[in-house]
Amino acid sequence: MNSGQHISHKFDEDVSEVTSLVLEMGGLVQQQVEQAVNALSTFDKVLAEKVIEDDIQVNTLDVKIDDLCNRIIVMRQPTATDLRLIMAIIKATNDLERIGDEAKRIARQAIDLAKRGALPDIFDNIEQMAERVVEMLNKSLDAFARRDIDEAFTVISLDKKVDKNYKNLMRQQITYMMEDPRKIHESLDLLWSARALERIGDRSCNICEYVIYLVKGKDVRHIDLKELKEHLD
Amino acid sequence: MNSGQHISHKFDEDVSEVTSLVLEMGGLVQQQVEQAVNALSTFDKVLAEKVIEDDIQVNTLDVKIDDLCNRIIVMRQPTATDLRLIMAIIKATNDLERIGDEAKRIARQAIDLAKRGALPDIFDNIEQMAERVVEMLNKSLDAFARRDIDEAFTVISLDKKVDKNYKNLMRQQITYMMEDPRKIHESLDLLWSARALERIGDRSCNICEYVIYLVKGKDVRHIDLKELKEHLD
Repeated sequence: MNSGQHISHKFDEDVSEVTSLVLEMGGLVQQQVEQAVNALSTFDKVLAEKVIEDDIQVNTLDVKIDDLCNRIIVMRQPTATDLRLIMAIIKATNDLERIGDEAKRIARQAIDLAKRGALPDIFDNIEQMAERVVEMLNKSLDAFARRDIDEAFTVISLDKKVDKNYKNLMRQQITYMMEDPRKIHESLDLLWSARALERIGDRSCNICEYVIYLVKGKDVRHIDLKELKEHLD
Repeated sequence: MNSGQHISHKFDEDVSEVTSLVLEMGGLVQQQVEQAVNALSTFDKVLAEKVIEDDIQVNTLDVKIDDLCNRIIVMRQPTATDLRLIMAIIKATNDLERIGDEAKRIARQAIDLAKRGALPDIFDNIEQMAERVVEMLNKSLDAFARRDIDEAFTVISLDKKVDKNYKNLMRQQITYMMEDPRKIHESLDLLWSARALERIGDRSCNICEYVIYLVKGKDVRHIDLKELKEHLD
C-alpha cells in the first residue's frame, strides 16, 4: 500500500468514526423533538424537564465532533473533495445542536402550559405539523447517512407544507386569542412551539443542502426550489 | 526566507483577505439590522423592502467567504492553531448570515405593521432593546477584528439585559393584547420582531465565543457566564 492509499484509508476510518457520532447526536436530537412535542400535548412536565436535561449530552457530542473534525483536517490534510465532506459534517452538527435548542424551547413552553392547564382543541394541528417536521428530520439524517440527494430533495420540498401548517396554526390561534383574550398566554405558548417546529424544519433542510453540496459539489443554500430541481435533474 | 516562513506569510495574507470580507459582511448585516428597526418604528415600507433585497449581497459574501476558507485549508494545510482561526471565521460568517435573516424577518413585520397602521406607544421599549442589540453586534465585530477577549466578554454579559428587555416587552404586549384584542396582530408583529432582536443578541454572543476560542483555545459555547469569567481571569 503506498502512502497516498494509506492516508486515504485512515481518512475513511476517521470519517466513519465521526459520521457515527453525528448519527448518534441526530438520534438524540430526534428523540428530544419527539419527546418535547409529546410533553406539550400531554402536559407532561417531567418529560419536558428530561428534554432540557438531555441537552447536555447533545452539547457534549457537539464539542466532541468539532474537535474530531479539526484533528482530521490537521492530521490528514484532506483534498478539496475530502474537505467538503468534513465541512458538511461540521455544519450538520451545528444544525443538530440548534435543533436540540429548539426542542428545549418547546419543552419550556410545555412546562408553562402544564402549569396553566389544558387547551386541547388545537393540538390536532400542532401534532400534524410536528409529525411532518419529525419526518423531515428523520429523512434528513437518513439522506446524510446514505448521501442520498433524492431523499434530500424530498425533505426540502416538504418544507413548504410545514410553512403552510405554521401559517394556518398562527391564523387559528389569533382567532382564538381575539375570541377569548384570557387564553392569550396559552395561545402564545403554542405559537412559540409552532415557530420552533418551523425552525426545526428549516434546519433539516439545511442538513439536506449539505448532502447536495457533498454529492454535487454545489453550494445550494441560497437558491430556490425550482432552480434546485433543475440543478439536480 | 525558508519554505515554512513562506507558507506562513501566504497564510497571513489569505487570512487578512478573508477577514476583510467578514468585516464587510458584518458591516452590511449591521446596516440591515439598523434599517429594519428603523423601518419598524417609522412604518417605512420602502426601507423594509431594501433590507430584504440587501440579503442577496450578504448571501453572496457568505458563499465567497466559505469558498475562500476551504481553499485556504487545502492550499496552506494549516497547523492546529491556524485551523482554529479559519474555523472561527467560518462559524462567525454563518452567524452573520443568520443575523441577516433575522433582520429580514423584522423587515417583513415592518411591512405588515406599515399596512395595518400605527401602534406608537410601545416603540420606546423595542427601540431601547434594538439599540442594545446593535451595540452587541458592533462590539462583537470589533472584538472579532481585534481578537479582544475583554470586549467579547462585555458582549456576552450584555445578553442578560437584552433577555430582560425581551421579557418585559413580552409581558407588556400580552397586557395590551388582553386589553384590546383587536390589536393582537400588531402586538404579534412586535413580539416577532423582539424575538428576532433577541436572537441577534444570541448570535452576537456566538461570535464572541469564537473570539475566546481563538485567543484562549477553549470551546466556551456551552458554559455559563460565571464559569466563563473564571476561565478568562
